[in-house]
Amino acid sequence: MAADTLIHDFELPFQLYDVLDAEALCKHDKFSEHSVETFDAVLDTAQKMATNLFLPHNHIADKNEPQFDGHKVSMIDDVKVAFDAFRESGFIAGRYSFEDGGMQLPETVMTAVSAYFMSANPSTTAYPFLTAAAINVISHFANEELKNAFMPRMLTGEFTGTMALTEPHAGSSLADIKTTASPQPDGSYRLKGSKIYISGGEHELSDNIVHLVLAKIPGGPGGVKGISLFVVPKYRLNSDNSVGPRNDVQLAGLLHKLGYRGTTSTALTFGENNDCHGYLVGEPHFGLRYMFMMMNEARIGVGFGAAMIGYRGYLYSLDYAKDRTQGRIAPNNKPEDDATAIINHGDVKRMLLAQKAYTEGGMSLCLYGSNLIDRINTCEDEARKLDLQEMLDLLTPVLKAWPSEYGPKANDLGIQVLGGSGYTREYYSEQFWRDNRLNPIHEGTNGIQALDLSFRKIWQKNGLGLRVLQKEMQSDFAKVSTTQSAELVQALNPYLSELHEVLTHLTAVMQTEKAFTLTANAQAMMNIFSSIVVSWIWIRQASKAEQLLADTSDQQKQNYYKGKIQAAKYFIEWELPTVARDIQLLKTNNSTCVDMNNDWF
Amino acid sequence: MAADTLIHDFELPFQLYDVLDAEALCKHDKFSEHSVETFDAVLDTAQKMATNLFLPHNHIADKNEPQFDGHKVSMIDDVKVAFDAFRESGFIAGRYSFEDGGMQLPETVMTAVSAYFMSANPSTTAYPFLTAAAINVISHFANEELKNAFMPRMLTGEFTGTMALTEPHAGSSLADIKTTASPQPDGSYRLKGSKIYISGGEHELSDNIVHLVLAKIPGGPGGVKGISLFVVPKYRLNSDNSVGPRNDVQLAGLLHKLGYRGTTSTALTFGENNDCHGYLVGEPHFGLRYMFMMMNEARIGVGFGAAMIGYRGYLYSLDYAKDRTQGRIAPNNKPEDDATAIINHGDVKRMLLAQKAYTEGGMSLCLYGSNLIDRINTCEDEARKLDLQEMLDLLTPVLKAWPSEYGPKANDLGIQVLGGSGYTREYYSEQFWRDNRLNPIHEGTNGIQALDLSFRKIWQKNGLGLRVLQKEMQSDFAKVSTTQSAELVQALNPYLSELHEVLTHLTAVMQTEKAFTLTANAQAMMNIFSSIVVSWIWIRQASKAEQLLADTSDQQKQNYYKGKIQAAKYFIEWELPTVARDIQLLKTNNSTCVDMNNDWF
Repeated sequence: MAADTLIHDFELPFQLYDVLDAEALCKHDKFSEHSVETFDAVLDTAQKMATNLFLPHNHIADKNEPQFDGHKVSMIDDVKVAFDAFRESGFIAGRYSFEDGGMQLPETVMTAVSAYFMSANPSTTAYPFLTAAAINVISHFANEELKNAFMPRMLTGEFTGTMALTEPHAGSSLADIKTTASPQPDGSYRLKGSKIYISGGEHELSDNIVHLVLAKIPGGPGGVKGISLFVVPKYRLNSDNSVGPRNDVQLAGLLHKLGYRGTTSTALTFGENNDCHGYLVGEPHFGLRYMFMMMNEARIGVGFGAAMIGYRGYLYSLDYAKDRTQGRIAPNNKPEDDATAIINHGDVKRMLLAQKAYTEGGMSLCLYGSNLIDRINTCEDEARKLDLQEMLDLLTPVLKAWPSEYGPKANDLGIQVLGGSGYTREYYSEQFWRDNRLNPIHEGTNGIQALDLSFRKIWQKNGLGLRVLQKEMQSDFAKVSTTQSAELVQALNPYLSELHEVLTHLTAVMQTEKAFTLTANAQAMMNIFSSIVVSWIWIRQASKAEQLLADTSDQQKQNYYKGKIQAAKYFIEWELPTVARDIQLLKTNNSTCVDMNNDWF
Repeated sequence: MAADTLIHDFELPFQLYDVLDAEALCKHDKFSEHSVETFDAVLDTAQKMATNLFLPHNHIADKNEPQFDGHKVSMIDDVKVAFDAFRESGFIAGRYSFEDGGMQLPETVMTAVSAYFMSANPSTTAYPFLTAAAINVISHFANEELKNAFMPRMLTGEFTGTMALTEPHAGSSLADIKTTASPQPDGSYRLKGSKIYISGGEHELSDNIVHLVLAKIPGGPGGVKGISLFVVPKYRLNSDNSVGPRNDVQLAGLLHKLGYRGTTSTALTFGENNDCHGYLVGEPHFGLRYMFMMMNEARIGVGFGAAMIGYRGYLYSLDYAKDRTQGRIAPNNKPEDDATAIINHGDVKRMLLAQKAYTEGGMSLCLYGSNLIDRINTCEDEARKLDLQEMLDLLTPVLKAWPSEYGPKANDLGIQVLGGSGYTREYYSEQFWRDNRLNPIHEGTNGIQALDLSFRKIWQKNGLGLRVLQKEMQSDFAKVSTTQSAELVQALNPYLSELHEVLTHLTAVMQTEKAFTLTANAQAMMNIFSSIVVSWIWIRQASKAEQLLADTSDQQKQNYYKGKIQAAKYFIEWELPTVARDIQLLKTNNSTCVDMNNDWF
C-alpha cells in the first residue's frame, strides 16, 4: 500500500455490500435503476478524482491559505480545478432525483463517495459539501419559487451554499442571535447583523454564494422560538433569475485557523448599507426547527469526516511503520543484526491497532447511520419508519461526537508512530491532526452532543429510540454464528446490563435536584453509550468477517478479515472496559465537578 | 486573574514551602546561605523577567520562526533580548556553587524558577535550559582542562550548549549511530557524521555553541557499549581559550516543526571537510552511560515543561470561561434572562477541573522529583542515599511521561473550552497545544518510558525502588489527619493492592515467553503505576490544604485550598478508576496487540 492510498481496496466493498447489504436498496423503486455495478462505477470515479485532483494539493493548500486583499479572496488554483471537476461529475446532485439532474443515489453510497474526498482533502471537499447541505435544507423547506431560483444552479455547483448560523456574541447559544430580518412590501426581507465562522462564506469558485441565514423577524417570540431562516445570496437575481447586482453582504474578514486552512472561514456583515435582500424559507419562526430537522445528516457528515481524516492518518503512519527500521527484537537483538521495521515493536503495533479500531469503527458507524437514513426513506411501514427515525435521532449525537473524539485520537497516535518526523511539517501527520481538531467543535460541540444525548435523546418518546436500537442489536447478536464474535457478544453483554441499571437509576434522579450533576457528567453518559454502540458496530464487522473468512482461500482477503476480527477484539478488550469508571460516576451521582466553586479555581 | 498570569500567586509558595518544606534544605551546609527570603527573591526576579521579556514574544516567535539563508540563522530580536537578560541574571549557573559564580540554589528552587519561563515562553527558554543541561554533563564527566575551557563561559551564557545524540537513520536506537571520532596524535578527535533534531544547534545568540556529540571511536565494541561522548564546538578555541576559527560543523538545514517554533531544530553535519575537531568527555565508550546518568534531570525537565505549558493553557481557558457569556442556567433560563459565564456550564467546569488536576498534578509531581534530587544530594546516610536514588530512577519514566501525556490533554481541553475561538490562531490555545505535542516525543518517547518502567525500573535491584516508594507513600498516608484526604487514601488503597497483584503476576510471567505481551501492554503498566503515583501526589497536596484551611480566615486562601481538595477528589474519582481496564489487561496477559499480524493491517 503506497503512502497516498486513500482507502484500503477491500474496505468500502466490505462495508457497503457485506456489512450493510447496500445492494438490497436497489429493490426499492427509488433505486431500481441502480446495481452493485453502478455503485462501483460511481465509487471508482470518486476514487480517481479524489486521488488525481484533491489529494495532490491537500498539503499545498494548508501551506498557502486563502488571502483577502480587502476586495477579493484568492486561493491556489488547484482548488478551483478540483471543485470544477467535482461539480461537473454531478456529485453535488448525487442524492437527487434523475429529473432534478441528479443520480438518485442512496445516502449510503453518497457517504461512501465522500470517504475518498475526505481522506484526500477535507478542505477543498468542504465547498461542494456545504453546498449539498444547503440544497438539502432548501429542497425540503423553501417554496417553489425560491427553489426554482436557486436550486438548479446549486445542484450543478454554479452556485455554492453556506450555513450562516453563529454570531460572535452568541456562539452555540442560537437563541441569542441578534441578526434581524425586516419584512418588505414585496414579500422579501432586509437583513442586518453579523455572522462568524461561516465556512465557504467568500471565494471566487462559483458564480454566486447562497447563504442560509438565521435571523429574527422583529415582533416575533423570544428565544429559539423566534428564529427564522432566509436565503441571502451574494449576488441578487434579476427577474429572469440571471445573476444580478451585488447584495449587501460584506466580508468583514477571514479567520485564521489551526487547520482546515484550505476552507475559507469568514466573518460576514449583512446589511451594512441597509440593503441586504433575503428571502424567507418556509414559515416565519420555524428556522431553527428546519435546521434541526436537517441536523442528522449534517452531523453524520462531520462524524464521518473525522473518521476519514483519522483513517488517512492511520494509513500514513502504517506505511511509515512498515518502512522505517529502528532497533531490534529478540532473539535478533545483537548489534550486528539488522534493525527491524518499527511495526514489529509491540507499542507501535498497539498504536496502529488502536488507530484501526478508532477509524474503521467510526467509518462503519457513520455508514450505518447513512444507511439508516436510506432505510427510513424507503420504509413503507409508517410505524416502523417512525421507530427507525427515533433510533436515528438517538444515535445522531454518537455519530457526530464519537468519531470526532476518536478520529483526532488516531491522528495523535499517528504522530507518535512517526516520532520526531511526526512533529515536523515535512511529514503530513501533523496536518491531519490539526485539520481534525475542528470536528469536536463545530456542528454542535461534543459537550453539546453529550447533553443532547443525556437530557433529551435517551428519554425522547419514553425511550423509544433506545428500545428500537436494542432490538436492532439483539437481532444482530442472534445472527452471530461464529466463535470469536460470539465471545465478543459475551464480553459486551454485561455492559448492556450496566447501561440499563444506569438508566433506571437516572430515571429516578432526573426527577430530583441531583439531575444537575448530569450537566457535568453527561460526557460519562456519552462514553458508556457510544462505547457500547461502537462495540456493536465492531461485532457486526467481525461477525461478517468471520463468515467470509471461512469461505475464502484468497490470502489477501483472509488477512483483511483477520485484521477486522482483531480490531474488534481490541476495541472490546481495550476500549469498552474504560466505561466502568463512567458507570460508577453516574450510579453515584458524582458531584465533584458541579460542586467546584468558581472561586476555587 | 488576568489573561497573562503565568502562575497563580499562591501556587509555588504552597508547593515549595507547604507541600515540600523546601526551607528544610537550608539546614544543610550547601544551602545554609539561603532562606525562604532568598528563595522568594529569586522567584520574584524570575516572575518579572518571564512576564516582561519572555511572555510578550511567545506568540510572535511562533509566527516568525527562525530562518536560514544558507549562511546564517536569523530570528526576531526579542529572543536575544530575553536570552541576554536571563544569562545576565545568573540563572544559567543557578544550581552551581558560589565559587563557580553560581547561586548554589537547590534543584527544587531552580525547577520553580523554570516554571515561570516555561509558562511564559518555552521556545526561548530552551536556549538557556539546553545550555544548563550540557553544563551538567560536562561538569560531572569532563576533565579539568575541558571544563576550564568551556564551562565558565557556558555558565555565563556567553557560550550555549546542545545535545547531539539522534541520527537520521537511527532515531531512538542510539546503538546504531554511525558518527565516528578518530583519535589524533594531539589527543583530540576528528568527527564525521550527521545528527538530526538538534535543538539550538545553530543561532547567533552566543559567541560559541558547544555540542555534546555521541560518536563511535573506530575499533570499539559494537552497539551501545561502543559509544563515546565528545565536546564539539562551533568555533574552536585558541591556545589562550579565546574564540578561534570556525570548526567543521555545518548546518544542513532547519527543521520546520508543528510547534516550539521559536527554538531552532537543526540537522547538523560534522566533518564534511574532514576537519571537525572534538574532545573526548571522560573515558572512551562511556558516552551513553554518562548521558543516562544525567537523564533523570533532563527527563524531569521535559515533564515539568509539559505540565507548565498545560498549566498556562488551563489559566488561559479559565480566564476565557469566566469572561465569556453564553446560554443560560436553570432557573434563570428564560430568553429575557442574562446569558451566563460559560464557567457555570457543568461540562465546561468539568473541563476546567480536569485541566487543573492534570497540570497542577504534573507540576507537583516534578517538583517532588526535583526535591528528591536535593534530598539525595544532601543525604549523609549512604544507604538511605542509595534507596532514594533507586526511587528516583523508578519515578523518572513517570516524571517524564505522565505530565507529557496529561499536559497536552489539558491543552486539548483548553481549546475545547474556547470553542470556535480556540480553533483560530487569533487566540493562543492552539499554540500551547502545538508546542506541548513535542513532549511525548523527545527525551525518550513515552512508549520508551513505558518500556523502561515495565521491563527495567520496576525490577531493578529486586524492586528496591518500589519498596522505598511504598514506604514514602505509607509515611505520607500515616500523616493524613484530615477527613476528606483520609477518604481519598481509602479510595486509593485498593489500587495499591491491585498493583501488587499485577506485579506478583508479572513476576511469574516475565520468566515465560508471555513476557512478550508486555512489549505491547507496557502502556497499561505505565497507566496503573503513574495514576497511583499522581493520586499520592494529589493526596499530599489535599492533606496539606485541609490542614491549612482549618488555620486561615483569609477568604482567598480558603478558596485556593478548597480548590486543591476538589482537584484531588476529581483525580481520584474520575481519573484513577480508569486503570481498572489496565489491571485486567495485565492480569490476563492480553495478547491482542502482539497477536496482530503485520499483514492483517
